[in-house]
Amino acid sequence: MAVRGVYPGRFQPFHWGHVGVVRWALEKVDELVIVIGTAQESHTVANPFTAGERVVMVKEALKDAEIDLSRVYIIPIPDILMNVVWVKYIAMFTPPFRYGIARNPLVVRLFKEAGYEVLIPPAYSREIYSS
Amino acid sequence: MAVRGVYPGRFQPFHWGHVGVVRWALEKVDELVIVIGTAQESHTVANPFTAGERVVMVKEALKDAEIDLSRVYIIPIPDILMNVVWVKYIAMFTPPFRYGIARNPLVVRLFKEAGYEVLIPPAYSREIYSS
Amino acid sequence: MAVRGVYPGRFQPFHWGHVGVVRWALEKVDELVIVIGTAQESHTVANPFTAGERVVMVKEALKDAEIDLSRVYIIPIPDILMNVVWVKYIAMFTPPFRYGIARNPLVVRLFKEAGYEVLIPPAYSREIYSS
Amino acid sequence: MAVRGVYPGRFQPFHWGHVGVVRWALEKVDELVIVIGTAQESHTVANPFTAGERVVMVKEALKDAEIDLSRVYIIPIPDILMNVVWVKYIAMFTPPFRYGIARNPLVVRLFKEAGYEVLIPPAYSREIYSS
Amino acid sequence: MAVRGVYPGRFQPFHWGHVGVVRWALEKVDELVIVIGTAQESHTVANPFTAGERVVMVKEALKDAEIDLSRVYIIPIPDILMNVVWVKYIAMFTPPFRYGIARNPLVVRLFKEAGYEVLIPPAYSREIYSS
Amino acid sequence: MAVRGVYPGRFQPFHWGHVGVVRWALEKVDELVIVIGTAQESHTVANPFTAGERVVMVKEALKDAEIDLSRVYIIPIPDILMNVVWVKYIAMFTPPFRYGIARNPLVVRLFKEAGYEVLIPPAYSREIYSS
Repeated sequence: MAVRGVYPGRFQPFHWGHVGVVRWALEKVDELVIVIGTAQESHTVANPFTAGERVVMVKEALKDAEIDLSRVYIIPIPDILMNVVWVKYIAMFTPPFRYGIARNPLVVRLFKEAGYEVLIPPAYSREIYSS
Repeated sequence: MAVRGVYPGRFQPFHWGHVGVVRWALEKVDELVIVIGTAQESHTVANPFTAGERVVMVKEALKDAEIDLSRVYIIPIPDILMNVVWVKYIAMFTPPFRYGIARNPLVVRLFKEAGYEVLIPPAYSREIYSS
Repeated sequence: MAVRGVYPGRFQPFHWGHVGVVRWALEKVDELVIVIGTAQESHTVANPFTAGERVVMVKEALKDAEIDLSRVYIIPIPDILMNVVWVKYIAMFTPPFRYGIARNPLVVRLFKEAGYEVLIPPAYSREIYSS
Repeated sequence: MAVRGVYPGRFQPFHWGHVGVVRWALEKVDELVIVIGTAQESHTVANPFTAGERVVMVKEALKDAEIDLSRVYIIPIPDILMNVVWVKYIAMFTPPFRYGIARNPLVVRLFKEAGYEVLIPPAYSREIYSS
Repeated sequence: MAVRGVYPGRFQPFHWGHVGVVRWALEKVDELVIVIGTAQESHTVANPFTAGERVVMVKEALKDAEIDLSRVYIIPIPDILMNVVWVKYIAMFTPPFRYGIARNPLVVRLFKEAGYEVLIPPAYSREIYSS
Repeated sequence: MAVRGVYPGRFQPFHWGHVGVVRWALEKVDELVIVIGTAQESHTVANPFTAGERVVMVKEALKDAEIDLSRVYIIPIPDILMNVVWVKYIAMFTPPFRYGIARNPLVVRLFKEAGYEVLIPPAYSREIYSS
């Protein structure tokens, strides 16, 4: 079976730092599931884009970067606001996966507590990219 | 801009009748958004598969059918249970689209009331396919 | 058919600045729908009054101002927290309407994106009235 | 203070039997709050009309019946699906009231358990009116 | 650490068949967590009692049966309606546990998929007890 | 019937100040219901522990303090975010009770508005205990 990783983020917006993570992850897994979180929010300073706009944005950026789209899933998911169930809730929407891909310590911890291995991508420069 | 259609269904399971609709729709639009509805339900007789399992099932079926995946989005969405807002809620998760694709009279009506044009695919044989 | 406008606010409390907006709007529309938002909140510093208390407050203020109540609807609505669907959600609870009435830039934008015209009332003096 | 009664129903549609109840109730209370329940549902066989359509329907019917609208509130409320809190939830949206107005045994019981008196209107003929 | 089992049910009402299961389970685990499900429902034919009434009923029945209450937790939990996350959601409210205790095939399956072992109690006579 | 009090808190964590309140309350009521609020939150700085962990913590602390557990209920409850219905919502999950036990002015007010008497425990030293 395909070995998959799940890479969650709000992606407001999706930027070249994120593209770098996708490229990095696709060297480690067969297929990558990009989870667009906080899908219910938009039109605010912190969350300007709708989930649907972010889906397009991610797909176009990956196309521009000549990443093989057939190895990628892009799944928008609304918040659930219960940390204990969050990973299982994500898993409800996604293909079966082996790895969580995250740097945020809470997200890393939640993946581990739910029994997943975690791949921690190298940091991208916060001076160049944000959010 | 790409002309898109949104094709919603529960797809429990996704079958060759559905594949036929996808093929038919891709002759009419540049890109197709397959919305996997009732994403929150699984493990029941009426809704056996999780949203994530259905995402894989749709992708694999389209691959087998040699349909160009770069023209397709597969988006699982939980129910909202308010018919008045349903189309806008779907639109929150999806790329901008022009057409709703549906045969169900309620779904057709909701798309029209929300200001979308509707493409009605030919019926597939209920004797061969179900759900 | 009656030309209607929808005027949303939290109205914590409803004050004479708001009454002025109602008077101003009733010169432009046949009927006005006053939407009392954030109906689920009360008993806090930011939202002291219940939705029901605000319904009474609005009605009594309009009566005192000798505004024709038969041209006004007062509808309390709980928050939905999804900007994309917010206007449709409001429309679910209200009679059909042509105009949104708002000064807040986000609210103006949401009405416009949902296909409604917007009437922007003159500012009332923030020195005299608040909230 | 005004003595008020709360009269809940789905009103799909509001018919002359309901108008009779309103007239009957206004002989017993100063003001009547008509609660349009299940406000989130529409477009189905059991619940064809939106809450907003029902608000208009109630107001127009009362106007036709020459009932004094200044003594009536019309408040649409979505379901909460917790019988224990239902009356308090209704009370959140409505002006303070003394009486529940209902024939349905569950509704009567819920009003009583919440500490309200109940006025039971005479039955209207089910042969003539429905829902 | 205490070895615990979780025993979920609606317990509408809690009867001597259930007491038998508790006694049986306490021979296999150090502590038992009785989860009172569908806690949000009451006042209906299928679910007459409130969660709180059921909490009392369970405690009193166990006391009558001279079961050691210090080895038992009684936890009411509202429904979540997502089978994929249901076990994790239960685990959010309960002490850490090793065993699910259930006969219902769906519940057995959900516990197993979530990585828990399942203890299946002997059937009690449906002629004597119900629900 | 047993005279009961309800003592709500987040108990992040449960400390000796809380134990003191429990001891104080059990001199005034037959049975005490400890409500563990905000049960849906965990893994954050403000709410580190899950509801289930807090249930264990409370039980173990009371055992250490040699408090009679058969007189105590420990009930975790998720937030509802509607102050008007909050007390009734709590009452849905708990045995019938006469007293609310609280120092927080909003909580005191909500219990009183819902028709309950309130017992205000002496302050514990904030220098020694927190949260």
